[in-house]
This record gives sequence, structure tokens and C-alpha cells, in this order.
Amino acid sequence: MSLFVQKFGGTSVATIPLIENVAKRVINAREQGHDVVVVVSAMGHETDRLVELAEEVDYQGLDGRREMDVLLSTGEQVTISLLAMMLMKHGVRARSFTGRQAGIVTDVEYTRARVLDIDSTRLKAELEQGVVPVVAGFQGTDEQGNITTLGRGGSDTTAVALAAVLKADECQIYTDVEGVFTTDPRVVEEARCLKRITFEEMLELASLGSKVLHSRAVEFASKYQVPLRVLSSFSDASGTLITNEDESMEQPIISGITFTRDEAKLTMLGVKDVPGIASAILGPISDANIEVDMIVQNVAADMSTDFTFTVRREDYTQAMGILENIAKSIDAREVTGDNKIAKLSMVGVGMRSHAGVASKMFRVLADESINIQMISTSEIKISVVIAEKYLELAARALHSAFDLVEEDK
Amino acid sequence: MSLFVQKFGGTSVATIPLIENVAKRVINAREQGHDVVVVVSAMGHETDRLVELAEEVDYQGLDGRREMDVLLSTGEQVTISLLAMMLMKHGVRARSFTGRQAGIVTDVEYTRARVLDIDSTRLKAELEQGVVPVVAGFQGTDEQGNITTLGRGGSDTTAVALAAVLKADECQIYTDVEGVFTTDPRVVEEARCLKRITFEEMLELASLGSKVLHSRAVEFASKYQVPLRVLSSFSDASGTLITNEDESMEQPIISGITFTRDEAKLTMLGVKDVPGIASAILGPISDANIEVDMIVQNVAADMSTDFTFTVRREDYTQAMGILENIAKSIDAREVTGDNKIAKLSMVGVGMRSHAGVASKMFRVLADESINIQMISTSEIKISVVIAEKYLELAARALHSAFDLVEEDK
Repeated sequence: MSLFVQKFGGTSVATIPLIENVAKRVINAREQGHDVVVVVSAMGHETDRLVELAEEVDYQGLDGRREMDVLLSTGEQVTISLLAMMLMKHGVRARSFTGRQAGIVTDVEYTRARVLDIDSTRLKAELEQGVVPVVAGFQGTDEQGNITTLGRGGSDTTAVALAAVLKADECQIYTDVEGVFTTDPRVVEEARCLKRITFEEMLELASLGSKVLHSRAVEFASKYQVPLRVLSSFSDASGTLITNEDESMEQPIISGITFTRDEAKLTMLGVKDVPGIASAILGPISDANIEVDMIVQNVAADMSTDFTFTVRREDYTQAMGILENIAKSIDAREVTGDNKIAKLSMVGVGMRSHAGVASKMFRVLADESINIQMISTSEIKISVVIAEKYLELAARALHSAFDLVEEDK
Repeated sequence: MSLFVQKFGGTSVATIPLIENVAKRVINAREQGHDVVVVVSAMGHETDRLVELAEEVDYQGLDGRREMDVLLSTGEQVTISLLAMMLMKHGVRARSFTGRQAGIVTDVEYTRARVLDIDSTRLKAELEQGVVPVVAGFQGTDEQGNITTLGRGGSDTTAVALAAVLKADECQIYTDVEGVFTTDPRVVEEARCLKRITFEEMLELASLGSKVLHSRAVEFASKYQVPLRVLSSFSDASGTLITNEDESMEQPIISGITFTRDEAKLTMLGVKDVPGIASAILGPISDANIEVDMIVQNVAADMSTDFTFTVRREDYTQAMGILENIAKSIDAREVTGDNKIAKLSMVGVGMRSHAGVASKMFRVLADESINIQMISTSEIKISVVIAEKYLELAARALHSAFDLVEEDK
């Protein structure tokens, strides 16, 4: 008999018939002899409704964050009660738990709290009595009993944290997609759902824009060695299992190709290559709360340097303005930019032992006459910046060249 | 400087502009130098929305009551956060508190819990710091931390209980009417808002269908000697103050006239007058969960008796069926009934010392040719049952004859 923590997101509990569907999945696992703890998000557009109410009040002060958490946490509380009733209607003993009742203690950072501790005494007692605990995701209380929410990816984090403390055999994240894909199926028709993937790979994929799972939950699962499974609430496929790298599993070189559009790059040409120049350029950008992604610096023969970095496309104009001012003050030659670029990354733990991945990737792009504007690499990831218009072509060519179409073992 | 507990019901907080109106009333009291604790209900139709969700799940089991409380308590939680934000927007330090955070401990009777204890440490600390605590009405938790709700009149009860434990100078219940009226203004145009009334009178008026205040909150206020004021969220009138009977105040004989339509009466004629006959008749009625209001029994000269009682009109047909079965088994002569009756009551602590109230009341009705079908009296109340069609006529005649039109001192 195993213990599963099953987490269902907002689209999976958006209506009462969908909540009944969730109940049936829980019951199915129980009938196979497993214990289940359920974690749920707020119903469909409930959070939007609550946010709109707060926006109508329109209080901008810092103390409003405490009240936002009081407000938003009601969303999950509605779902837990309805799902508990639905499970009981189908003959399963069930009981709902708010974050506080589930023993979830966080720090006091309202709207983005972090889990400090979980007192699982009550949940364990309920499990021993054969009850299915239905826990509100996304929320906890600080040590004074103030309600807090965990911010983005909060419900996933709740599920993983509970799985860790209850030593669950698997934390199952039910979503509206079938699992983690080799790349975006809307762009590459042959994209395929992965059977397994490592935490590291998932982290690279998640932070690069795969919307399936928030990186925070993946980090948490990796830290506490909680096997994580992403699967669909609406199909019976087994989804994608995310675990540690397994010595025995034959590791494909590349697990997936991910990309983001909506990028822009800025270059300062002819900068004097002296210490402190990078921070002189990026300091004012960061002060303006503009997030910088890739950074590349090349030293030319004349000891001047070209400094390039990427930002989100919406920040392009503002960043350009800042850069032009800096250019004057540090006597740089010229500022150029391009807001029609995209970033494409290949991710895979297998590339550690395969030095040839990068060169093969560049050759495939060259064969398609796609110019690479920037390159950045990490141990399990290679990212390139290319013109946005070539993005689909590049993704399809790489997906095919690296045999991602083939079923993994 | 006084401390007020101000309670605002669902219609007073139904929209964000109305919540702003509430904030302004609170600020007004603060500007006059008073401390304020606010208690609020769920916004307008929010409770209905939540009940509909539960009805769609349609779980009938007893354990569903715990989950109903988890569900319904979210309604007030939404309001407290929004009102706290609104107060802060207007420059007032405010903080929201759920029932649990406000220290409200109840028994474990889900959906109709009773307040056992209030730990007011936190609220007192907030008041000392100049913060306006905004407390969710209607809810608490049991000693294990399970969420409970207080059932009908719950938010009023929360307000009174907090006023009692905080030793507030006044508990102000804001509603959508101006206060307690001498009678229903829709029936008697001259009906007038009372300036003062005693707890006892209010109890008789509340339990007889004056919808302004739930009798439970009045009982609570009476027990803990909390001065209670009923007033409108939408006007500046001072409302009705409900306190103990004050020796020095010149007590009017009659404070108000109240009535209920939707009544029906049933009579069993020619019952043998032997001990136990009343329970033989009313036992099966009560077993069928039919509430009985007035009961009148007269003994005739032949030692047989006529037994009459009233029920809600919606229970009439079922009660009649039960009664016909009983009539056969106890050999009664006949069962009759009337479902077009109404009950009218006059209430006033002054009638204790005025024996003539009853006879004057009966004479006024006789002058209007209104037949009295049943009479029931208590120390501060006389109730009569009459044909429903005469109700308005009777109410107007009595209101005028007992000088209720005149302003009280």
C-alpha cells in the first residue's frame, strides 16, 4: 500500500461536475489500495473574482498584503469543503483542512510566504482512521496565526511539502496537460510526452517557460527527494515522473526543447574594458526593476568590449532609454538593440557526457541558415538567441535531429 | 471615550461602495473619539451562492455539517479583508480577524454552534495600539480548531459576545431599517421608530416575527447587560436603544404591535378530558417535526374538551392528516381547521401594572367587529388569533387606540 499526495489545480475543480471527476480519481486510487491526501486550488476563476474585489477597493499600502492573503485564502477553503462533501457522497470518509488546520506554518511574508514547518500530527491521525484529508493548497499561517499565502506555484508547493513530511510514495500534480513534453506541441507536431525526467531537467524546463509546474515546487521536491508526477485530470495516461537521475536508466541526451518569445536584446558597442563596467551598465537597469536574462560580453582586439544582454520585450523601450544615458556617461561608441528575438534552449542531463551536443545543435541551425545571435550554456542546458521568425523552424529541426520523436524507455 | 462594537449585516456590505459607506461610519465614530470593533456578515448574496454550490454537490450525510461551516465561513472572511483594506485606504489602521483569530471558541455543534468562551487578548492589544479590529461574524472554532458557525442570528451574536467580553459601552447593530418600530410600517402608516425598549420587550417582538434582531442576540445582551442599539446603515437617525428596564423612564404601556400571517389552526372537538390527552395529540405532531405555537384547551360541561393549536400554514395539510388519524384512535368527535388566520400580539412591560390592557384590546377589536378566535397571554404580551383578512384593520385600530403614534420621551 502506498501513500499518494494528489494535487488538483483550478481548472480541475472549476465546477461541481469537475469536482466529482476529481473525487472519482481519488476513489480510484483508494480502490487500488492506496492512501490519499488531496490538495486543491481555488475553483477556476474564483481567484480572479477575489482579486477584482480587492482592485475595486484599490488600497495600495503595504498592510494590504496581509488582507489580500485573508481574502485569497477563502478560494481554496471553498474547494476543500465541496470536495470533502463530494467524497462523502461517494461513500469515502473525508475531511477538509485549511492550511492552518493541516499544520502548515510559514514565515510572515504575506502574499509570498515560505513554508517553515508542518505539524502533520492531525493529518497522520486522520489517515490512520481511514479518512481522506482534503487540504487547502497555497496557504498557511505564521507563528502568530495570521493567514499567509505562498504566492505563485503555491498549491504545488503545499502538495510537495506535505508529501515530504508524510513521506509519501509519490506527489501527483494533476493539471490540464498530459505531462511534460519534449517541446511545445503547438509548434512541433511530433512533440511527445516524456515518461521520466530528472529534477534538474525539470527545473531548467520550468524556469524557461514550461508552464506545467512551478520551479519552486520542483526545487522543494528535489531537496526532499519526493518523486513528482505530472499528469492530466482529464485522461488516464500515466504522465511524466520527475525523480532523481537514475544510474540504471538509459538517459537520453536531450530531454526537451523549450523556448520563450517576447525577448529583446540590447548591445552597447565599444565599451572600455575596465573593471566595474558590467555593474555600471546593469546597475541602473536593475534599479528600474527590469529583469535581465542572458548576458554576453566579448573583448575585441582593441581592448574595447561589446556588452549584450536580453530583457523582456515589454521592458525594451525603457531599457534602451536607460542605456543611452549610460553610454554617454561612460563614453561608449553606440547602443543597438533588437526586439524581435527569441530564446531557444535544449535541456538534458545526458549532455554532460556528450561534448558534441553543442556543435551538433549549431550545425543543425546552420543547415537551416539560422543565424545564432547569442549563446549561453550551463551543465545541462544550451540556450541560443535567434531571430523570432526562425523559432518554429529551429524547434522542429532540432526536435527531429536529436531524435526526440522516439519513445523513451 | 467609549468603546463601540459596530455590526454590519449582509445588505450593508453587499458591494464595494457599500463597504466604503461602512468604513465612513466607522471613521465617523473614531473622529468623535470612540474606539471601534467592527463585526461584519458575508456580502449580500454571497451566502446564497455558497449554499447553492453545496446543494449542487447534494451530500445529505451528517458529516456534511462540518464542511458546510468550512464553506460558509469564507463569506465573512471575504468581507473582513475588504473592509480592513477600505479602512486603511481612508487612513485608519485596521486589521481583519477570523472567528478563530478573534479568539471565539464554540462548542462542536456544526451549523448552530454556541459561543463557549472568547479569548480577547489579541483584540485588546490591537485596540490599545489604535487599530480597528474587523471581525468575521457568525463563526468560531471548537477547542480542536474545527471551524464552526453560529447559525441564524450568528453575526449579531458575535457582536454582542464581543461587546460583553470587551465591556463595550454599546453594541450597535446596523441594518437596513431605522430601528424597532411600534408595528409594521407597511401595514400601519403611522408606525413609529421607538427610541428605547427593554430587552424583555425586544425578545417578545423578535420571537414574534420582528425581523430586525435575532432573539438569541437579545438574550445574550440581556444576560451580559450589553446596551444594544439597532440603527440604519443608510441614515443618520439614532435608531432604537435596547436596555434594561429603567426605573426612571416613564414606561409606555404598550411598546409595539407585532403579527405573523402564514398561520393555521387545528381543533379537535369532543375529546375525553383525561390526563395525557394533550401529549397523545401533540406527540405525533412533534414527531413529524411540525412546530406548534399557541395551544388552547377548554373544558365543556359534559367533561369533554375542545383542543386547539396553531402551526405554520405550510404544515397545515400534514398536521391535519396526522390529527385525523389520532381522532380515530382516541375516539374524538371531529377535527376542524382554518388556514386563513393570523396572530397579532401587543407587547409592553407597562402592561404588568395595567390590568386593563387586555379588556381594552378586546373592546377595540369588538368595536371593529373582529372576532377573536384564540387568546394567549404572558406577563408582557397579549396575543390573539383572528381571521387573516382583518389583520390590517386590527393593527391600525390598536395602534391608534393605544396612542403608539405619539413620540416616546
